[in-house]
Formats: sequence, C-alpha cells, structure tokens
Amino acid sequence: MTPPSPAAIDELKAALGPSGWTQDAFEIAPHLTEWRNRWTGETPILLKPGSTDEVSRAVTICARHGVAIIPQGGNTGLVGGQIPFGEVLLSTRRLRTVRDVTPLDDAMTLEAGVTLLEAQQHAAAADRYFPLSLAAEGTATLGGVISTNAGGTQVLRYGMMRDLVLGIEAVMPNGEVFKGLKRLRKDNTGYDLKQLLIGAEGTLGVVTAATLKLFPVMRSRAVAMVGLESAAASIELLARAKAETGGGVEAFELMKRLGAELVLKNIPDTRWPLDPIPDWSVLIEITSGTPGGAEAQMERLLEVAFEEGLINDAAIAQNDAQRAAFWRLREEHSAALKPEGGGWKHDVSVPISRIAEFIDEATAAVERFHPGARVSVFGHIGDGNLHYDVIPGVGQDIPAFIGRWKEGSHVVHDIVARYDGSISAEHGLGRLKTDEVRRYKTPLEIETMRAIRAAIDPQRIMNPAVLF
Amino acid sequence: MTPPSPAAIDELKAALGPSGWTQDAFEIAPHLTEWRNRWTGETPILLKPGSTDEVSRAVTICARHGVAIIPQGGNTGLVGGQIPFGEVLLSTRRLRTVRDVTPLDDAMTLEAGVTLLEAQQHAAAADRYFPLSLAAEGTATLGGVISTNAGGTQVLRYGMMRDLVLGIEAVMPNGEVFKGLKRLRKDNTGYDLKQLLIGAEGTLGVVTAATLKLFPVMRSRAVAMVGLESAAASIELLARAKAETGGGVEAFELMKRLGAELVLKNIPDTRWPLDPIPDWSVLIEITSGTPGGAEAQMERLLEVAFEEGLINDAAIAQNDAQRAAFWRLREEHSAALKPEGGGWKHDVSVPISRIAEFIDEATAAVERFHPGARVSVFGHIGDGNLHYDVIPGVGQDIPAFIGRWKEGSHVVHDIVARYDGSISAEHGLGRLKTDEVRRYKTPLEIETMRAIRAAIDPQRIMNPAVLF
Repeated sequence: MTPPSPAAIDELKAALGPSGWTQDAFEIAPHLTEWRNRWTGETPILLKPGSTDEVSRAVTICARHGVAIIPQGGNTGLVGGQIPFGEVLLSTRRLRTVRDVTPLDDAMTLEAGVTLLEAQQHAAAADRYFPLSLAAEGTATLGGVISTNAGGTQVLRYGMMRDLVLGIEAVMPNGEVFKGLKRLRKDNTGYDLKQLLIGAEGTLGVVTAATLKLFPVMRSRAVAMVGLESAAASIELLARAKAETGGGVEAFELMKRLGAELVLKNIPDTRWPLDPIPDWSVLIEITSGTPGGAEAQMERLLEVAFEEGLINDAAIAQNDAQRAAFWRLREEHSAALKPEGGGWKHDVSVPISRIAEFIDEATAAVERFHPGARVSVFGHIGDGNLHYDVIPGVGQDIPAFIGRWKEGSHVVHDIVARYDGSISAEHGLGRLKTDEVRRYKTPLEIETMRAIRAAIDPQRIMNPAVLF
Repeated sequence: MTPPSPAAIDELKAALGPSGWTQDAFEIAPHLTEWRNRWTGETPILLKPGSTDEVSRAVTICARHGVAIIPQGGNTGLVGGQIPFGEVLLSTRRLRTVRDVTPLDDAMTLEAGVTLLEAQQHAAAADRYFPLSLAAEGTATLGGVISTNAGGTQVLRYGMMRDLVLGIEAVMPNGEVFKGLKRLRKDNTGYDLKQLLIGAEGTLGVVTAATLKLFPVMRSRAVAMVGLESAAASIELLARAKAETGGGVEAFELMKRLGAELVLKNIPDTRWPLDPIPDWSVLIEITSGTPGGAEAQMERLLEVAFEEGLINDAAIAQNDAQRAAFWRLREEHSAALKPEGGGWKHDVSVPISRIAEFIDEATAAVERFHPGARVSVFGHIGDGNLHYDVIPGVGQDIPAFIGRWKEGSHVVHDIVARYDGSISAEHGLGRLKTDEVRRYKTPLEIETMRAIRAAIDPQRIMNPAVLF
C-alpha cells in the first residue's frame, strides 16, 4: 500500500475543516488499538466527519487520489477489521443525529455514530423495544453493528442485525450517497442493495445512517436455570420450549459444567442456582405480550420437561435481581477463562440438531491433538452458535499450548466445516479470519464476492485488507 | 436478441435426454401465457431438467453459446418476468425432491419445483409451520417464490420470503453450482450471496433448492372483523394490537366500504359480518402459543379499542367456518372488481404511519385526474402494503378509462414516491414495471445494480429483459 500523498491529505483537511480531522497522536491512539490488544495499527490521519455530506466529500477525495480508507465505529470489533495499517482512518462517531423515531411505523432512523445502547434507549422512550443486545453495546455504534451484522443474545427470537434493518444510507466507494433510508416492510424493486452493505465489514461503502425495526415492549418475562444430563437433552428442551411458547423463547444459553466451575472459581460473588452443578446448564428466557404469560409458560414448560425426563433440576428467578444474577453467570464465562491461561477461542455455528454430536466429536479430536486440554462450551444454542474454547490442562505448559493455537483451531474448524457449519457465526472475518475461511469457501463463492466487490469498488479503496 | 443456433439446441437436447426437453407446441403452450393473459410469448425450446446437475449442464451450454434463458417456476408471476420472447425457457418444475426436513433445526430443504402448498404440508407433517401463504400457493413453486421474494398474508409476523430462507442452491450464469444450502441462523463469513439471488427475478442464476425456516405450530387462533370510521383509526388500532399481543398479530387487513359493497354485489353467498357496512373494515388474526391465548388477547384488544373509541363495531369468528368466511370476504376483493370494468391496479407500499394521509392525497389526485372514477383500497396494512385500485365510475366509458391506465398510474406512483414508498411492494418488476420504476430510482441505484449484474452475468444471458 502506498501512503496517501501530501496533496490528498491537504484536500481532506480543507474539505472537513479543523474539527473534522486530527493528526494528534494522543487523540488517535485509542482508535489504533483493538480492545483486546490483539492489533495495534497506524494511520496518517483520523477523519472525523460530522455529517453524511462530509463523509461523502472525504470519500470522494480519497477515490480521486486512490487512497485507501478504513471506516471505524466504536472500535469494539473482535476480528480487527476496524484497525488501519497505513490507511486513512474514518471514524463515524460524530454522526450522532436521531433523524426520526416513529412508533406507528415501528421504525427509527439514526445516524451511524449512535451507540447500540442509545438506540435501545431511543426505542424505549417511544414505548418500543429494539432487541439487539451485546456486551459492548455501550460503545459499539450502529454503523459498526450493521457492517459486521452483529448478533448477541436475542437472535433466537428477533434475528441478527441484518433482520432488523429496514433501510440504509451509505457513502459508496466513489463518494456518492446511496439513499436507501426506506421505512418499508415490502419493496420488490430490484436487488436489495442494503443486504450487500450489511455485513460487508466496510468493504463496499461507509454506512452513515439506518432505519431500524422496532418491536412491542413485552409485558412479562421469566428467566430460569435448568440442569440437564447431556447437550442432546438441551436440544430436545429447546424444541419443547419453542412449541410451548409459540416462539416466545427469547434466549436459550447452554453452559457446560467446566465453565460454571470456572465462573465460581474466578469471578467473585457468584453462586450457581443449582446444587450440585449439573453436567450441563441452560439459561432460558421467555417473554410474553400478556402480563403473567411468561411465568405461566415457563412453569408449564418446566413441568413438561421434568415429566419427560429432559431436565433434572431447575430454578426460576423470582425477581429482577435474581434474573440479573442468573444472566451474570452466563456473561462472565469469557472472563472466567482468562485466569486459566487463555485459550483457543472459536465462534462457530452448526445446525442445531447436530450440536451434541459436534461437541462430542470436536472434543475427542481436541483431546487427541492436545491431551489434557480442557474444553469450555457455552453459547446461544438456540441459534446453533457455540463459543467453543479450548484451555490448557491444569499444570500444562501455557506458552507451548498457546503456540499450537492455529493448528488446534484447524482441528476444530475442519470439524465445523464437515458439519456444514460456519467458522465465524457472529464476529465476521476482519483481519483475523479472512485467511482461515479460504480453507472452507469454494472458489465460486470467493470469485463471486471478488467480482461484486470489484464492481462496486473498482479501485479497492474500502478496507482493502479484509474479506476477499 | 439472436435466436439460439441449431447447434446450441442440439447440444441442449443431447445433454438433457428425451425427457429433459420439448418442442411440442401443445406441451409448451401453457408455459407461454401469463395467467391473467397479459403476455403471450414464444420459445424455440422448453427445457425440463430433472436435477441440479441437469440445470447446470443446460446453463453451461447456453453460456458457451451466449444463449439467453428465462427460468420459470409455476408461471403464476404477476409481472411477466417468467414469459420468454424468443429465449430458451427453463422450467424448474421437475426439481421435486424433498432433500431434508429436520424439526430440531426448524429447517427443511426442498428443491425449487416443490409448490408453496406442498412446502406448507411438508412442514405440517413434521409438526412445524411454514408461514408464507398466498392465493397461488397450489401452483407457485419455491424457485419462483424465492426469485420474486413473495409476500402474502402472514408477512406482518413472519416476514417476506427473504426472511424465511436459510440457504440457497443455485446454478450461476456460467453454469457453476452455488452450494449455499446452509441450515445456519448465524454465518458472518463474507457477503450474503443468497440475499442477492432472492428477489433477483432470475437475472443472477437459477435457484434449484432452498433451505427454509420453520416455526412452531400455534395453539390458538382468533379472527375478528371490526368497523372503523377512518383509515387513520386502523393505524392506531394496529399499534394497539401489536402492543396487546406482544407481536402476536398475524394478519391485519384493511378494506374500504366500496370493496366490501362490490364483494357483496359480485360474489355469490357473501354476507358482511357487520351491519351496516362500516366506512372501513379491518380483518384481524391473532395467534398464540398458549391454548385459548389468542381468543383472550382478541377480546382484551377489542375491549380496549371500544373504550378508546378506535372501533365502533366488531364480530369475532366463532368457529373455523366463520373464520374461513371472514377471510373469503378479504380474498375475493380482486375478483369483485372485475365485473366493474377492470381497473388501474397498484401494488404499493408506504410507511404505515402515513397510510391514511396517502389514501386521502392519492384519492383526491385520482378524482382530479379522472372525475367520477372509483377507488378501492384494501391490503396488508400491517406491512404498509396497499392494493390501490381505480375502477371506472358507474356508467363511465370503460375503454376510454382503460386507455388512461398508464397516465393514471403515474399519478398514483408519483404520490407513492413522495411518501417514500415503493411502486412494487410484493410482485416485483418483471416486464410490467421495469420501465416505470426508472422514474423513481436514482442513477446510483440503477448503475450499482447493473454493475453487480454484469459482474455475475457478464453476457447478460439470464432473463435479459427484466430489471436493469
């Protein structure tokens, strides 16, 4: 990559004005480091446009000079797609306008720099619900969440970000503005261009605003922790739960005993609500539009599940504090692994019906590959999405273990591929997985993506190092 | 368009064998006429491949010879996209294999020639629900329904076909097979190519199979007809209904009094359940996972709506026969218009919050343009989708009225565009609306679509006359 010329930099500065850019190393620094410290990059200039028009002017100048751009939102991505290595960095954080919230349309239009948490709050203020929720929601911006097609904990009922976007405004790689901020549920007038921009990781343009779907606020909510003998039983229980609630299951999170034990060991003030800790636990959340409906459905579900022998223990949270405590046990699973020496982390999905079989086969293969390694499995199994993490055995040589990460991941990913799964269920490819995924994509898929990209960004100036 | 050479035709015949093609005029005829008799086409040969591999071989030969292909499913499309005018016609009706139904995955994989009704039946046999439903479902095939991103009556709760497809297999314009039959709910590994194929009207490849989402069977269902004073009140009622049921509204269909009167006049054995016929009627369907839940929610909703003065009359269907009778009143709306002399039909969508305003403005404009014309409005207003039909006034000169169709439609569509709406909500563009939609698309949109199409089908052999 050739660095941008001084002339290009000067034009960018002039176009955006003094508040629209910085070369101050201190101000730029937090934009250059990925939050888990996996990548630290560099950039000749950080652009801070304050409007779609300013983004358009900046991209037009870059296009004219053939200068590469990395768009960045809240810098919470997990695969490094937002970190520049010499490219111009364009932050969308200053695009903060709430353009429109219309409860009757169940829709709101927000600019890309609004955070996910703020989006939820704008919905709530209009007596509506915006369901996408993930750990980084206080910092993650809509632009980033759309560009990575983020998932999170409520996907089972409401879908991924892709399913929650009605319209998009974006600056295309030539600087022109795609004005696709429709509030329509139905529009069959050609290719759905917004679908290409969603999940494109900034390679096809800069998302500047979006119209999002809103949902009714639920009137009741029930959370339970249940104990099961096997992962297979949890899949049967999931099917039961969906049937009993008519699709009212909002979250269904599986946790293996090892993860539970590590949470209790490494995270202060935690207590597992089931004693003894079962081999497998599931956190279930049910919501309903009827007051009291979720509680009634949860009780009926657990009754049926006990009778059928699917579960052998259960605790229903009795109040908000208990609900939060149950959820915390699930959310601390990642943090609880760290003190054990780090691990080979995998964000994978497989067909739901094959999850138990996959866990058995992958775990046997990991044990053959690195005897004594421990496997922690937890995740959104209602979506077929597992966080499958391998950590060193107690007393094992940690650096030696870490050194085998890439090979170990191939062992896991090869099995994922044989199960028709995905090696990146939620996080995207970015700089982390673009090479790895080539092992599993067909030449036709890669060539088709490359052709589409070349058609939309012939100079390949948008986030050139990620995707194909 | 140059017709396919005899050499190309011979190669196709040899590749598909005697049961894989026909040039018999009698057998081909039903494939050449659109079912409302708006278009009648011609073709040198009808290809009838029986497997994905045969589709691939046929398309490969066409690509080598630069021969244009029209893919056709059940031939129920409403915009003429499936009718050949000299191109080779490729029917996917013989692709009939049920590859897989897995209730635990809430997924089934069917080939493109399976009808929509059969798909619903395969789901039901597995104790699951496939929600897409439309009048032509006994004939419409999955390949066509996917390629046109069909809608129908259950979109409010379950979405369009686009929202119901987990994976796609398709033969690309070079003859290669795109193997995207994933059963995953989460897969963030590059551009979502299936999203491009859905709704592409056969311009980017031939869909040969798809993996579809399944849903739980609901345990209760309630249907009511309610009377309102204004379209605006129906929008308030819709918001109320969504809130009271936590998203359990499955259909919400608005009907203006004129349409109701014509149903009673022109369709035998019909009775409106409300007397007198209100200015506006809404058919509401609520479903619930809880036995008795839908009925209870409907009663509560109507109670609240009466109290708030949103509705002034209501009838709840008491049994299956009444539910069917209520639905028939809605479904006969199109048929009831025909004896009145035909009309200017519009399949439009606008933001839900602006429906009432849109109806007023469009109707005033139509009355100015053609004094005395009558306007029938009905449709899926839960999706913002109106069937806005203009018919001649009683005693008006019908041919003169029909002659003003194009101009009259511009009047309506121009207002739709000002409301940020769509001039083809469900039916697609095909041969009918490709020119019309150019009035409302930006050059950027058209150029981007053309570039994507050229990247995937550089010879433009797939359905060359439709889209951009």
